[in-house]
Amino acid sequence: MRENDCNSNPVFYYAIRTITMSGEDAPAQQQKAEDQKQETKTTEQPKAESKQESQPATEAPAASATATAAEKPPEEEVFTYRSLVLSGHGGYDKVKLQVKKGKPTPKNGEVLVRVKACGLNFADLMGRQGLYDRLPSPPVTPGMECSGVIEAVGEEVTDRKVGDRVLVLHRFGMWQEVVTVIAGHTFLMPEGMSFEEAAALPVNYVTAYMMLFEFGNLRPNQSVLVHMAAGGVGIAATQLCHTVKDVTVFGTASASKHEAISQGGVTHPIDYRTRDYVEEVRKINPKGLDIALDPLGGSDTHKAFNLLKPMGKLITYGAANMLTGQRKNLLAVAKTWYNQFSINALSLMHANKSVCGYHLGHLDDEPELISQVVAKLLELYGQGKIKPRVDSTWHFEQVGDAMRRMQERNNIGKVILLPEPKKEEPKKEEDKKEEKKEEPKKEENKKEEKQEEPKKE
Amino acid sequence: MRENDCNSNPVFYYAIRTITMSGEDAPAQQQKAEDQKQETKTTEQPKAESKQESQPATEAPAASATATAAEKPPEEEVFTYRSLVLSGHGGYDKVKLQVKKGKPTPKNGEVLVRVKACGLNFADLMGRQGLYDRLPSPPVTPGMECSGVIEAVGEEVTDRKVGDRVLVLHRFGMWQEVVTVIAGHTFLMPEGMSFEEAAALPVNYVTAYMMLFEFGNLRPNQSVLVHMAAGGVGIAATQLCHTVKDVTVFGTASASKHEAISQGGVTHPIDYRTRDYVEEVRKINPKGLDIALDPLGGSDTHKAFNLLKPMGKLITYGAANMLTGQRKNLLAVAKTWYNQFSINALSLMHANKSVCGYHLGHLDDEPELISQVVAKLLELYGQGKIKPRVDSTWHFEQVGDAMRRMQERNNIGKVILLPEPKKEEPKKEEDKKEEKKEEPKKEENKKEEKQEEPKKE
Ligand SMILES: NC(=O)c1ccc[n+]([C@@H]2O[C@H](COP(=O)([O-])OP(=O)(O)OC[C@H]3O[C@@H](n4cnc5c(N)ncnc54)[C@H](OP(=O)(O)O)[C@@H]3O)[C@@H](O)[C@H]2O)c1
Ligand SMILES: NC(=O)c1ccc[n+]([C@@H]2O[C@H](COP(=O)([O-])OP(=O)(O)OC[C@H]3O[C@@H](n4cnc5c(N)ncnc54)[C@H](OP(=O)(O)O)[C@@H]3O)[C@@H](O)[C@H]2O)c1
Repeated sequence: MRENDCNSNPVFYYAIRTITMSGEDAPAQQQKAEDQKQETKTTEQPKAESKQESQPATEAPAASATATAAEKPPEEEVFTYRSLVLSGHGGYDKVKLQVKKGKPTPKNGEVLVRVKACGLNFADLMGRQGLYDRLPSPPVTPGMECSGVIEAVGEEVTDRKVGDRVLVLHRFGMWQEVVTVIAGHTFLMPEGMSFEEAAALPVNYVTAYMMLFEFGNLRPNQSVLVHMAAGGVGIAATQLCHTVKDVTVFGTASASKHEAISQGGVTHPIDYRTRDYVEEVRKINPKGLDIALDPLGGSDTHKAFNLLKPMGKLITYGAANMLTGQRKNLLAVAKTWYNQFSINALSLMHANKSVCGYHLGHLDDEPELISQVVAKLLELYGQGKIKPRVDSTWHFEQVGDAMRRMQERNNIGKVILLPEPKKEEPKKEEDKKEEKKEEPKKEENKKEEKQEEPKKE
Repeated sequence: MRENDCNSNPVFYYAIRTITMSGEDAPAQQQKAEDQKQETKTTEQPKAESKQESQPATEAPAASATATAAEKPPEEEVFTYRSLVLSGHGGYDKVKLQVKKGKPTPKNGEVLVRVKACGLNFADLMGRQGLYDRLPSPPVTPGMECSGVIEAVGEEVTDRKVGDRVLVLHRFGMWQEVVTVIAGHTFLMPEGMSFEEAAALPVNYVTAYMMLFEFGNLRPNQSVLVHMAAGGVGIAATQLCHTVKDVTVFGTASASKHEAISQGGVTHPIDYRTRDYVEEVRKINPKGLDIALDPLGGSDTHKAFNLLKPMGKLITYGAANMLTGQRKNLLAVAKTWYNQFSINALSLMHANKSVCGYHLGHLDDEPELISQVVAKLLELYGQGKIKPRVDSTWHFEQVGDAMRRMQERNNIGKVILLPEPKKEEPKKEEDKKEEKKEEPKKEENKKEEKQEEPKKE
């Protein structure tokens, strides 16, 4: 079965990946994604501080690459830029920092953006393991969102100009110092928004907004279940719930984050690791929920459906249960897939319920829809009703640790990547000790670096 | 498997009915519906004009029963009332007119209503064939809605009084001259509303409203597919669509009704009997629909799903395809059931679609929800934005012909039943000729009494 078949038969997607990739470190597939337009021929090894000369050109460990285009200019003036590249499916080390040569030129309708900040999404973790169908096969640059400044505009672009500060939403390829994208995929940043905030907004807030207001039809006095309530989408959903009067938010998260999410608007935080969240919800709302957002998949989708009141809506939008550990876990994938929720017309009718599926990655062909939603979000931002929460920022060199932070369930809010190279500060004695594990630039919550495996399901 | 199991496992419902009822005239089951409270011991044979003395007491043909409680009062003053009773599953003749004895007394929280008009619903046709799970087993009085005047109130009823004109929504049992119901199932009729309109409103408008506005989240500029657009729910849905700005309505109906539904607000009438409605919709809206209402079931549910745009919503609320002909057609039932739409979470996600199931009959436990919707509907009625269209009115004696009118696809709007006996007009020569087939009181569309079988699917 070919890639295309997988896409059109999503049911089989995960199963096929499971079968065709025998191990987590399956070799990078040859097929170059047709959409990836930047010239990548010259994957030149950046001048690294720590010398690791035996690394092949495409396999420079991210942590060691701190060279910039500005550093040591070559004799002819060659434009170079830093890019994160997924070299194959597997662990954190599969995302490599590369330096690419040759300035990308925006085509008709496109703009060139100098990237200031990028968002890390859960889908990037899935993609690294070969579990995300909207990311082309490696080698490929991940990243669905970024913010930056327009540096050049292609022909026929009338509504963007050099110098515009924009946020960008694109299927993949945004983890780069410069990117070319269709002008319609960029949105002007409002006054006072930081680049980090701008990079934290598109995926999480568009997703939360469309789920709650297009499918969910959220109205006053309703109750909503938000899983991963301290995560990117979770925080966006919580804030958006409170743009409607008297909405009750049930939010699941690891216990250490409860204070933060309560302050952020979660009415009833639930520690899903030590409690049965179904019971907890029923205790408080015996009749159930109006809306249940389901990013988990597998048996949790069934639980969400059963928790709905009559006329309630389940919105399924992820399969986080497939992800356990750094590398693909076939058992978790199979279990999630096997327990997948399925329903027929009559059962749905007799239950008076709605089941919706949401996938931003499959809304490529709906730029108008997305633009309308982004416009509304920027308005809400302007009114102070929503504000992305940045958990931590990491330089491209630190991408492995950034991913680890999310995957080990330590983030509260958005994890941001910065293309600019990490500045070498004069090393203090303490710093030297933990050379292997880099620390984020800001980090608010470093208490529990080593967490036990969660008790979900 | 018991009745209760069928209800809690709706998937099996139709299949079980199919298996347990070997023929369309399966004997009336003994189990008396617990909810049916009126005293029915004395199923006295009404004094019929045409003498058919060999009929058993419970099998008086509807057309022959024209006696009233007022006629020939017995020696002791016994209160009697006319009631339609489904005596067993099968053809039109299975609904019999009976006269019951003893005045029903409203219990705590109940009211006694003198019924002026009743609605005939598609579910009553299904119920007659044993295909509607919310109607208890025969003998039972069908009818989910009526209008009338309150004649007595039980204890603890504070918001209704004798003389109030009300419309009533109740699971079954409304095809009777007097009924007792929980006060909360009655709603005050607004000024200027006729009893016929009031009986035409509850089921069709509550259904259409909840589908379009609770699940469908209908908004300006959207497009909606309405099947059976000249029927009760279809006309209600069309009118409600036009309470929102610039909504496009695609409506399927038999060709003879197109003029009427165009005038009623259907933007694009489609004759589903001679055209492929999927193609017709695609021709006009290549990208598809925002909302598809599906009262048909089987393969039509799939068609509706496929016609949706991304972020589109399918609302399935019936299985009219099961009904072909006067008696249960096992093949049609099996085919509809076999082709039943079913979907899993991943497919739904990748499609960015919503599938909702709506069944008013399963919202018994949600009186508040229903009350809110009825209140909004009465407000819209007051503003002249909705107005039930009555197709025709029939006396209880004519219930068979009333059902035939709907089942043979001749109605435009609501078919209404009147408990009051048909007045004997002095017979003219013309009338005598068609004694067998009674004519409705008003009838706007008698051109095509004999229609060929539809080409649906
Ligand atoms: N369909 C779409 O268009 C779309 C778009 C965006 C995101 N999503 C989905 O939304 C969900 C949230 O995405 P996000 O980017 O905002 O990430 P996120 O919520 O920031 O993800 C990290 C957090 O999720 C929780 N978590 C639950 N199960 C986990 C697991 N198996 N592995 C690691 N962490 C887990 C952890 O917090 P706690 O332990 O505190 O709960 C962790 O801190 C994901 O399922 C993602 O696929 C879908
Ligand atoms: N789930 C719920 O809560 C709920 C509540 C109310 C109604 N409903 C459903 O909504 C639909 C409409 O109900 P309604 O009471 O308003 O009836 P209706 O539309 O007045 O039904 C009669 C009309 O339906 C059309 N039709 C299509 N297929 C048919 C078939 N197999 N047999 C006979 N007629 C057929 C015919 O018109 P054309 O040939 O002109 O199309 C006919 O004139 C039904 O499917 C019903 O079960 C569901």
